[in-house]
Amino acid sequence: MRPLSIGVAGLGNVAQGVLALLRENGALIAARAGRPIAVAVVASRRAKDVDLLGADFTTDVGSLVKRNDVDVVVELMGGEDAALSLVESALDAGKPVVTANKAILAAHGDRLFELAARGEVAMGIEASVAGGIPVIAALTRSLVANDIDRVVGIINGTCNFILTGMSSRGERFDAALAQAQELGYAEADPHFDVGGVDAAHKLAILAALAFGVPFSRDAVYTEGITEVTPEDIAYARELGYCIKQLGIARRTPAGIETRVHPTLVPLDNMLASASGVMNAVELHGNATGSVLLHGPGAGGRATASAVLADLVSIARGERPVAYTPAATVPARVAMTDVVTAAYLRIPAIDQPGVFARIATILSEHGISIEGAIQRERAIADRKVPIVVLTQPVPEGEMNRALDALAALPAVVGPIRRIRVEHLDG
Amino acid sequence: MRPLSIGVAGLGNVAQGVLALLRENGALIAARAGRPIAVAVVASRRAKDVDLLGADFTTDVGSLVKRNDVDVVVELMGGEDAALSLVESALDAGKPVVTANKAILAAHGDRLFELAARGEVAMGIEASVAGGIPVIAALTRSLVANDIDRVVGIINGTCNFILTGMSSRGERFDAALAQAQELGYAEADPHFDVGGVDAAHKLAILAALAFGVPFSRDAVYTEGITEVTPEDIAYARELGYCIKQLGIARRTPAGIETRVHPTLVPLDNMLASASGVMNAVELHGNATGSVLLHGPGAGGRATASAVLADLVSIARGERPVAYTPAATVPARVAMTDVVTAAYLRIPAIDQPGVFARIATILSEHGISIEGAIQRERAIADRKVPIVVLTQPVPEGEMNRALDALAALPAVVGPIRRIRVEHLDG
Repeated sequence: MRPLSIGVAGLGNVAQGVLALLRENGALIAARAGRPIAVAVVASRRAKDVDLLGADFTTDVGSLVKRNDVDVVVELMGGEDAALSLVESALDAGKPVVTANKAILAAHGDRLFELAARGEVAMGIEASVAGGIPVIAALTRSLVANDIDRVVGIINGTCNFILTGMSSRGERFDAALAQAQELGYAEADPHFDVGGVDAAHKLAILAALAFGVPFSRDAVYTEGITEVTPEDIAYARELGYCIKQLGIARRTPAGIETRVHPTLVPLDNMLASASGVMNAVELHGNATGSVLLHGPGAGGRATASAVLADLVSIARGERPVAYTPAATVPARVAMTDVVTAAYLRIPAIDQPGVFARIATILSEHGISIEGAIQRERAIADRKVPIVVLTQPVPEGEMNRALDALAALPAVVGPIRRIRVEHLDG
Repeated sequence: MRPLSIGVAGLGNVAQGVLALLRENGALIAARAGRPIAVAVVASRRAKDVDLLGADFTTDVGSLVKRNDVDVVVELMGGEDAALSLVESALDAGKPVVTANKAILAAHGDRLFELAARGEVAMGIEASVAGGIPVIAALTRSLVANDIDRVVGIINGTCNFILTGMSSRGERFDAALAQAQELGYAEADPHFDVGGVDAAHKLAILAALAFGVPFSRDAVYTEGITEVTPEDIAYARELGYCIKQLGIARRTPAGIETRVHPTLVPLDNMLASASGVMNAVELHGNATGSVLLHGPGAGGRATASAVLADLVSIARGERPVAYTPAATVPARVAMTDVVTAAYLRIPAIDQPGVFARIATILSEHGISIEGAIQRERAIADRKVPIVVLTQPVPEGEMNRALDALAALPAVVGPIRRIRVEHLDG
């Protein structure tokens, strides 16, 4: 049968992974797809010393759309403007697209899927979230019969590597980040990862697919891991939790929550076992309950595996992903209305009655205490952290309680609040 | 658009799950599939007080194939002969089939897929392995670009529930089994589950999909969990392992191994965290490395979710699964040639030199010791277990060593051998 002929934009890690896998596994892929996948052309700003499998090379990315021998445009350039313009022009021209670009999907997914739907053109986006873990296929295909109420994931490997290092070796954030940078798991400018931006892009995509809400990275509340300390991790463990950077998309009666922040996760939850650079995503639906996927969330070959899965789907004549906008788009829940339990670390002067005053203020704001750690010191009037685990409470109420706590004379430093997810049922 | 009209054979838990999910999530499923899924007829030996969503009821299962208003035959009867004959006649008549029947697939998968391929008819089998976990889709779609070298899974929830109970509460097998039976997680005749037969069926399917070998339940070495003791579990933990009942399909230079047996798994492996009735399957390929899926391996609604995923795929005009026989079918490795590390619990008389004699015999058979537990007792000549963890060795050599060990005068009872999997990389 005629090969599926692709044009690849970009020649970075993922594109090189696609070429390497076609070289190594091409015959196997052809047998499974029913036809070979052939690379007609690779477009990139500059050539690299890479085996292009006989494909043409060009610096003119726009030429991919015009070539008759390109059946599918594979956008692996990264960045936003040029990639967006390539994907749009390909879909406009009726050419299927496979893209790994979470940034353009998180910001412009609605328009792109509308273009694809209008032209009945396939758009594959498996590679855009969690690399080699098939979370897009799970949401849009395998769990298609589920009303999904929760998608919760460790979707940034850099953060998970850093938090794992802090947890296993008691390191501070800066030391763990430095090690991640040394091993190539973090960029020189790490903000995109440790600030939660990358995870927010991915979560915007997952929320759109799970709930049919518009793609919106701006709707995702985003908090990074830079303030997490080894002390927080140790206290959390004492309370039966670990600290993970989670992306959380949840449907509640009030609407859809989307948030990225450090989170206390019960130690016996599967997400707690995902360590190092691994990613893990839990999908929770009304047919299956909880299904968890764990694996490599980044890396050239793992992400290329996802790109090729979409290409095989297209080679079989399928539309690899189905974004189905909800008939009635549910409301978004404002962060102040989100209800979560919280871990509080309150730096206080060790005086009689301090804990009682803290408990009173929490109680006045309708916040019950689930657990606490308070160690008496031999020397009075020393600074001592009081750690409190609360029951679930709306964020706005907690914010007011935190303001009141901060105003206590015995509270002598910024209060650290980390949200808790129990992930039941 | 015209509904996809299905005929359901069977009215057990899974069939009832399909009906319930269509009632609850039907509109959502229709929006995602592009057309509704409608039940034309339900066939079963006897009627039940279940909402059939307006479908006809018949006791004549064969009529499903003949009816023009049945686009897809959904085989959820279980059992072998009648189910096989229904699936065959449906495929013969060019009607797509969705089936949850692992027994007929494990024994007759080749013939069924050949029938389906000849008529270019879709056959969906997602529900046949691991219920709500999309392991078939992961193998045949999402990881399609991988050369798979290992599929390892906890694929029997009954065994996992029993072993988890034995591990967390120190119970003996019989007590944990009784609790599983009380909770409905084990049948009155538990052999099918605890003897490893059910897992062997599933593993035969996974091996065929992963490696393109013929479907063969007889090729799967099968050992149950009835001999596992709480002492073994405690010793294993001391050595850094838990004991899980695993299905293991592995490609080695010598060929394909397929085996089901209790296994020591490192405590820091994700499979070790899968507890209770949950299933977990690790797929290892040369593009992604290790990808793990975790979730409910049984239950009416979870399995129905998989059935409906295949039906949506068919409603979209796709062929939901692609069994691709290997161009050159790899050899099967005989169990005696399988290389694994092993845990040995050797009941011995506590005399000077016993451990040295055991170590010598192992050494004579080329078996290195990785670790050991030997507790000196205050009273000499008492029976004491000697626990040894070996390095990997061919099973045949280990069998000979076990015979030699059993012949030692100081060895006073049957030696317990449990294989070890490190699941690296």
